[in-house]
Amino acid sequence: MSFMNLEEIRLRLAEFAKDRNWDQFHTPKNLSMALAAEAAELLEIFQWLTDEQSKAIVDNEKEMKLVRQEIADVMIYLIRLADKLGVNIESAVMDKISENATKYPVELAKDNAIKYNKRK
Amino acid sequence: MSFMNLEEIRLRLAEFAKDRNWDQFHTPKNLSMALAAEAAELLEIFQWLTDEQSKAIVDNEKEMKLVRQEIADVMIYLIRLADKLGVNIESAVMDKISENATKYPVELAKDNAIKYNKRK
Amino acid sequence: MSFMNLEEIRLRLAEFAKDRNWDQFHTPKNLSMALAAEAAELLEIFQWLTDEQSKAIVDNEKEMKLVRQEIADVMIYLIRLADKLGVNIESAVMDKISENATKYPVELAKDNAIKYNKRK
Amino acid sequence: MSFMNLEEIRLRLAEFAKDRNWDQFHTPKNLSMALAAEAAELLEIFQWLTDEQSKAIVDNEKEMKLVRQEIADVMIYLIRLADKLGVNIESAVMDKISENATKYPVELAKDNAIKYNKRK
Repeated sequence: MSFMNLEEIRLRLAEFAKDRNWDQFHTPKNLSMALAAEAAELLEIFQWLTDEQSKAIVDNEKEMKLVRQEIADVMIYLIRLADKLGVNIESAVMDKISENATKYPVELAKDNAIKYNKRK
Repeated sequence: MSFMNLEEIRLRLAEFAKDRNWDQFHTPKNLSMALAAEAAELLEIFQWLTDEQSKAIVDNEKEMKLVRQEIADVMIYLIRLADKLGVNIESAVMDKISENATKYPVELAKDNAIKYNKRK
Repeated sequence: MSFMNLEEIRLRLAEFAKDRNWDQFHTPKNLSMALAAEAAELLEIFQWLTDEQSKAIVDNEKEMKLVRQEIADVMIYLIRLADKLGVNIESAVMDKISENATKYPVELAKDNAIKYNKRK
Repeated sequence: MSFMNLEEIRLRLAEFAKDRNWDQFHTPKNLSMALAAEAAELLEIFQWLTDEQSKAIVDNEKEMKLVRQEIADVMIYLIRLADKLGVNIESAVMDKISENATKYPVELAKDNAIKYNKRK
């Protein structure tokens, strides 16, 4: 991965929706539903696989094609939602990474993934 | 939005996980679960709002702070998952946009959002 | 609706899985994934509908057939999961209803659905 | 598990909503969102656990209390949704079990959980 041209993608998606008169459907509420539905399609691919099988999926061309499409769908709806709400995804991510560094200091989080607010 | 430095974020997240010995938890399967769980937290914010209220959320600073964090969480797990599976998110998105243009031609998709495979 | 013979359904599902040697797949973790994936399929049916359209779906025989199947799928995986974890669904529901009555007293919850822990 | 008095639960939930004037929020669309959000909370409990750890959760009283609550929440929203849409959950489940028996005959489904429409 390198740089992702979010602005170009945002514009292309906005244009795509405008051409089809889809802004009427693309409320933040509906986009949050579409995003969750797409994330669940990704989940479904892995639901009966063991951890090892889920790693080995990279060698299965047919399944990877599907995985790639579902990752794209999640990304697309996330950009649409962020666009409608005026959220800058990159800066939101940067802030969250800093926040996570505080919530999960190495000495407490080493070898365990317990949520910070459930830690004893 | 402009360019998102996916490579830098990917590296920071990989380092964050490595420092905490979290790669043992970050199998594709588990990451797909975390992604779906975060997408559902975004969903939960909107579940009792009307469409109009969901648009007006942009004026609610407190709620928007939460929305921004959840958007970041979804993005973070999507990048982690794509990293583990060797998927280039941007090219996956570009291919999906082209595919969608074929599946949803303007003349058929105008003013309706019926899924292409359910169209009569 | 009247009485649901949970015990009979539980047994039929357990037998169904046993005949197909599916208990190897039906870990609590995997069943929680399948449950979430099915709930998302139900979600997907409603994602582009207005509230009014979502109510009017009862008059659409074809869509209702789908809705009915997805409701069944959610119920099936919930029973399987509860079975594997030794949870009595009915008593869990009864306890939760009592708990909700405490969390959402009529005078505070009237006309608003704000989560009890977000109330001012 | 034995018999679940669905009719009594349905009535109690309907009354609970009526007392709080919540029917305005409980559209089928919104209930499908709440259901998916609750299913994801169940998912979140299991996301970093191995299959073995997910089975061993039955011995963890604190976690099981949470699991039990989330199972109840899913059941509650499923009953509310079925009520609003006039769906009889038990008969929907019975029909789906019959359908699954046709889709997943023992000889084809033995030891594999591949979705019927992805089978070669």
